[in-house]
Amino acid sequence: MREFFRVVTLGEAERILAENWPRDRAEVVVAPLAGALGATLAEDIYAQAHLPPFTRATVDGFAVRAADTFGASPALPAYLRIVGEVFMGQEPRLQVGTGEAASIPTGGVLPEGADAVVMVENMEEVSPVEVGVVKAVAPGENIIAAGEDVPQGGWVLARGRRLRPFDLGLLAGAGVTEVPVFPPLAVGILATGNEIIPPDRVPRAGQVRDMNSYTLLGLAQAAGARATLWGIAGDTLGELQAGIEAALAASDLLVLSGGSSVGSRDLVLEVLQERLGAEVLFHGVALKPGKPALAARVQDSLIIGVPGHPGAAAVFFQVLLGPLLARGEYPPRELQPTVKAVLRRSLASASGREEFVAVRLVLEDGIVWAEPVLGKSGLLRPLVQADGLLRIPIEKDGLAAGETVEITLLA
Amino acid sequence: MREFFRVVTLGEAERILAENWPRDRAEVVVAPLAGALGATLAEDIYAQAHLPPFTRATVDGFAVRAADTFGASPALPAYLRIVGEVFMGQEPRLQVGTGEAASIPTGGVLPEGADAVVMVENMEEVSPVEVGVVKAVAPGENIIAAGEDVPQGGWVLARGRRLRPFDLGLLAGAGVTEVPVFPPLAVGILATGNEIIPPDRVPRAGQVRDMNSYTLLGLAQAAGARATLWGIAGDTLGELQAGIEAALAASDLLVLSGGSSVGSRDLVLEVLQERLGAEVLFHGVALKPGKPALAARVQDSLIIGVPGHPGAAAVFFQVLLGPLLARGEYPPRELQPTVKAVLRRSLASASGREEFVAVRLVLEDGIVWAEPVLGKSGLLRPLVQADGLLRIPIEKDGLAAGETVEITLLA
Repeated sequence: MREFFRVVTLGEAERILAENWPRDRAEVVVAPLAGALGATLAEDIYAQAHLPPFTRATVDGFAVRAADTFGASPALPAYLRIVGEVFMGQEPRLQVGTGEAASIPTGGVLPEGADAVVMVENMEEVSPVEVGVVKAVAPGENIIAAGEDVPQGGWVLARGRRLRPFDLGLLAGAGVTEVPVFPPLAVGILATGNEIIPPDRVPRAGQVRDMNSYTLLGLAQAAGARATLWGIAGDTLGELQAGIEAALAASDLLVLSGGSSVGSRDLVLEVLQERLGAEVLFHGVALKPGKPALAARVQDSLIIGVPGHPGAAAVFFQVLLGPLLARGEYPPRELQPTVKAVLRRSLASASGREEFVAVRLVLEDGIVWAEPVLGKSGLLRPLVQADGLLRIPIEKDGLAAGETVEITLLA
Repeated sequence: MREFFRVVTLGEAERILAENWPRDRAEVVVAPLAGALGATLAEDIYAQAHLPPFTRATVDGFAVRAADTFGASPALPAYLRIVGEVFMGQEPRLQVGTGEAASIPTGGVLPEGADAVVMVENMEEVSPVEVGVVKAVAPGENIIAAGEDVPQGGWVLARGRRLRPFDLGLLAGAGVTEVPVFPPLAVGILATGNEIIPPDRVPRAGQVRDMNSYTLLGLAQAAGARATLWGIAGDTLGELQAGIEAALAASDLLVLSGGSSVGSRDLVLEVLQERLGAEVLFHGVALKPGKPALAARVQDSLIIGVPGHPGAAAVFFQVLLGPLLARGEYPPRELQPTVKAVLRRSLASASGREEFVAVRLVLEDGIVWAEPVLGKSGLLRPLVQADGLLRIPIEKDGLAAGETVEITLLA
């Protein structure tokens, strides 16, 4: 056993990972707007022109001077003279004066002189040249002013923003069709272990197919990363060093899976510390399952050794790596969406570490039950069958059947 | 105004869309495992062999016969003769008899004769040929039996499953590296309106850039669809028909954006009904914002006309189309994850329709506040600034400041 074996709490692990997370690289790529969803904006974006570019009607109706409608009612309509029609997509060739109205479609340009639009439902036809308004409008009603969404020179979106669907629409409105973004993090995944073989091979005695790499690939992809499989390195210093160096050269974050035995973990640690000069950030997290995890830093890259048991690897990734990959930070627990459920059976938990239990959610007669999916931590199927994770806080020694709990859904 | 104008409740709209949703196509594609996340499995998958293929140790320690350890304690260890070592990835060349033990790493093959593993922490070294067990193990303890994750011939994953990260790992373990999946739904997006121009053009008087298509593209992509922009069709029967026919030929679901004015909606309806023989499923949903929406069916394709106001289009998509695209069904409300928050100001709502209000979530002193992001429904920025949607149920005429509410996060 090596001398450095630093076990940290979940909170410390979060802080250490967030502080050492690869980010703020100088490299910027230009993404087409249609391919920019989920990317991180590399520059502040300002509007070159008013959005919308002109004052628009938001309903079908008549453009009017609001003051002409004050006091109008079904019993006492305000009668206005029709001076023409505004056509969609065209500048109006008319003005609206006192006592006048012009028909206008939703999205049409408000003509000069008008300051509001009366909905067609609140008008009555009198003659081809006259209408009656039966409900008053206030100035500015049923219109959107030029620049009301974003004024010219105004801020559209800030550097560092993860682009969401509505952001794409706003960028389109501002005329930004090529978006400066930071490239997504390159996540490399390297399996280690003499017993691990690629999934397309048939295992001989003692061999198992590489399940963890594909689980980790899926988790990284689900969190928006550009993930690459770097194959399998056997448990020798030479193979490990070669595999880690090759993967590291192309990765911002390298995830090593496997190495669950003490001997295998020792080898990985020796390669990282003595051959690659890595700084070990922690080695062990007070987390169940997921304890035997390792974080190390080599220059600007982060190396994470996840536990070899699939369930433990999955919980470690979902709890500690997923949020950083997806958002660059850990959202406060209060802002993480959960499903409220009633715990179906009591669960004991050793205090002194955070424990996560996979649960299936079952809806019966309007009640959502959380059923712990029990199974040894070496099994993957319990996680396949599970819908979410239940957290048993570090200070609790268990949860009782019938308690209301909050479940975080699995990716 | 056309004669057919069928307004439905939100629940009816959900039922109609789910019933007419394009699905169960015969076409199956083969995806590489590394590219199968989120795809829909087209066949049931069974295990060709036991997973794991052999009985494995789940801890570092010694393989033993459990009966030999019964009654062992630190005061009275059970002494066992060391008969050798199991090496990782290799078939053991030894057997464990009564009174014997063999060292074994995590993941090693349990040797013949042994039925449990004692953790190294519960052993004491006596001599190079003898160990003392200080804590008894039960038969089966610290091992995973061959086939315990999935037995040979057992079911791995069912047809129709949306593949999640853990599923990829299980498929890898079962040796499935090429996955039969249904291709993702092809969502076409066609903007309509004489005033709409592509975002890379500079608007002339009366013109606006196409914001909705990009918002809808992002929403469709976020829900896992393969989405394509089909440009902009002007408000003439000929242009609309040509645009819709071209997009429809390549789409399972065609989303028409724009057409917010009555005249424009009438034109779309005329093309759909009279020129394309579409069956109109509904025309208007009791939903705010989002009411003026249309659903129609042409053969196996579904056509959705979303409202022209960006906020209304976004709410309609997020509430009605997103869940079907992402999962093929509407999850029960109880199973949808939410963030609990305290409403910061009272909101009035006309009863008779479901209302959705965009809110920003603000965490202050451990309390999550939901702040309604007010703004006219023609504006997109309120949705950009919002974190989630608050639903005001149809039977309520409002919500009071200080009420605890549940917020669904926006994509």
